[in-house]
Amino acid sequence: MIVGVIGGGQLGRMLALAGIPLGLSLRFLDPAPDAPAREVGELLVGAYDDPALLDRLADGAAAVTYEFENVPVAAARRVGAVPDARALEASQDRLIEKRLFRRLGIPTAPIDDEVTSFPALLKTRRLGYDGKGQRLVETRPGFDPGHVLEGLVPFDRELSLIAVRGAGGETAFYPLIENIHSRGILRSSRAPAAAAPQARAEDYATRLLDELGYVGVLALELFDVGGELVANELAPRVHNTGHWTIEAAETSQFENHLRAILGLPLGSTAMRGEVVMLNLIGALPEPAALLGHRNVHLHLYGKEPRRGRKLGHVTMLDPAPETIRALSDLVLEQH
Amino acid sequence: MIVGVIGGGQLGRMLALAGIPLGLSLRFLDPAPDAPAREVGELLVGAYDDPALLDRLADGAAAVTYEFENVPVAAARRVGAVPDARALEASQDRLIEKRLFRRLGIPTAPIDDEVTSFPALLKTRRLGYDGKGQRLVETRPGFDPGHVLEGLVPFDRELSLIAVRGAGGETAFYPLIENIHSRGILRSSRAPAAAAPQARAEDYATRLLDELGYVGVLALELFDVGGELVANELAPRVHNTGHWTIEAAETSQFENHLRAILGLPLGSTAMRGEVVMLNLIGALPEPAALLGHRNVHLHLYGKEPRRGRKLGHVTMLDPAPETIRALSDLVLEQH
Repeated sequence: MIVGVIGGGQLGRMLALAGIPLGLSLRFLDPAPDAPAREVGELLVGAYDDPALLDRLADGAAAVTYEFENVPVAAARRVGAVPDARALEASQDRLIEKRLFRRLGIPTAPIDDEVTSFPALLKTRRLGYDGKGQRLVETRPGFDPGHVLEGLVPFDRELSLIAVRGAGGETAFYPLIENIHSRGILRSSRAPAAAAPQARAEDYATRLLDELGYVGVLALELFDVGGELVANELAPRVHNTGHWTIEAAETSQFENHLRAILGLPLGSTAMRGEVVMLNLIGALPEPAALLGHRNVHLHLYGKEPRRGRKLGHVTMLDPAPETIRALSDLVLEQH
Repeated sequence: MIVGVIGGGQLGRMLALAGIPLGLSLRFLDPAPDAPAREVGELLVGAYDDPALLDRLADGAAAVTYEFENVPVAAARRVGAVPDARALEASQDRLIEKRLFRRLGIPTAPIDDEVTSFPALLKTRRLGYDGKGQRLVETRPGFDPGHVLEGLVPFDRELSLIAVRGAGGETAFYPLIENIHSRGILRSSRAPAAAAPQARAEDYATRLLDELGYVGVLALELFDVGGELVANELAPRVHNTGHWTIEAAETSQFENHLRAILGLPLGSTAMRGEVVMLNLIGALPEPAALLGHRNVHLHLYGKEPRRGRKLGHVTMLDPAPETIRALSDLVLEQH
């Protein structure tokens, strides 16, 4: 059974590693001939909106999905991608996204005229990721339809919720994850987040999933502000902050995404222990130095090192504090 | 980093699924163009002893290994395979194997003249697996240098030990596994085996590993006779009875084999729960019927169904008794 995936990055690679044991063959479309997914499936090399390649991607596929949210909506429509284009449209435009949150009663940052204190963030409405496409401004800028002004949220911590909705509307949620970003890039995730408002987060995610008639994994990034949750953004796909689910959940987010889009029963999202995930960014430590620690799982993406690039991650299951310290030092040293 | 593997069956496929996250690319040699490993690495199609293909297999590889024990010894030597040819020679010839066990003080079944009761088993010395190459005889046959006569061991149960020895001589052992065979094919494994003589089994395996200067995963099949262990055979490779280590051990046998042959630190062999593995033989149940049960992990090998053929397995982690019953019924129905 073939599953087509628009995008062939590390998320696609991990989808394939979860899908191959289920008997699936994955086929990817990516402009980069050295895309990380090349080693685990067929790779069609070309533009995401190339009609002929999109048709080849979907040819004979039981389902087509995507692994990043800047897929052209027309491309997703052409191949009948799951999740469907509605979630994609919301996630591609910060203004549509914020309006969706509000319509569903999900708190978000103040925007545009609501912003009363500065500095504030001026964000491009479209094609932002990893902190790109945003800058701090000290005064209110002139109106620009391509940007949105967003008030800074005085958050205590950043959380994310990985949710999944099956083809029949059933839902499942992983425990809330606490994340640390720096320079706009995710550095580490820890799950389960301590004393986190799980029920509230699930309620918000359920509103989104049901409103969008969503099928697959969806990630919701949240700010924790004194115990209240403020939605930051949604990602209609498997998510970096859920990489740890490979080892530390009964069913990984990758397997659950595939189960959902293929109409299979969802797997349990229960945790198998406490977990810390560190991204490997820019350069790689020696594998032997990482693997000498107990219960450390290494995931490399087959990418050439480059400053600021996500090259892999390590997952530490039920880690001792000294393991966390040692690995954090090793990983940070490389940045 | 490239790892070459002689053989491209399901064991090779699972080696690749463990190796890709470590940043490895696997390359296989197998006569079957539809070998299960084809989807997870480069597949060289041809005979196991084709010198040109063996040279291509080893070209630029950090290590070459094998995933079945009937590899021609000369082929293993040509590519400098790890584990080396000594273990292969012992495992390919039941007489050499038995003599090795005896020299190391490891109990085995009586053979040839020692056999005093019938029926007994007449086995081909070479190329037996999955119960092939053996038959019951009621009387002592004439001497045949190509066969060995083996007394039946009145065992209470069949056990196996998966051991691994690193490049520096360090060893690690998974908990003993209880196995059920029928018509010569493994049907199910359960770990840890209840009240099993772990220390004794590890002692026997250590003697073998050290004697052979072994590097990699080795499986030792044992009979439990009233609490005493009698060695049946060794397999110098990852093993069907250790498939459950993917989900239920801190490090899988596949990852540990790769770590060992690459000189990396071994990973913990501690279990993450109790586990039952069922082989899927001959025909496949509907995936949805399996995946509807909690904590069931499906592994398909990408093989066409055929009577008696291992098509996949399911692993049940911390299974409820009703899950074991339901899945056993589902799986048996297909046979």
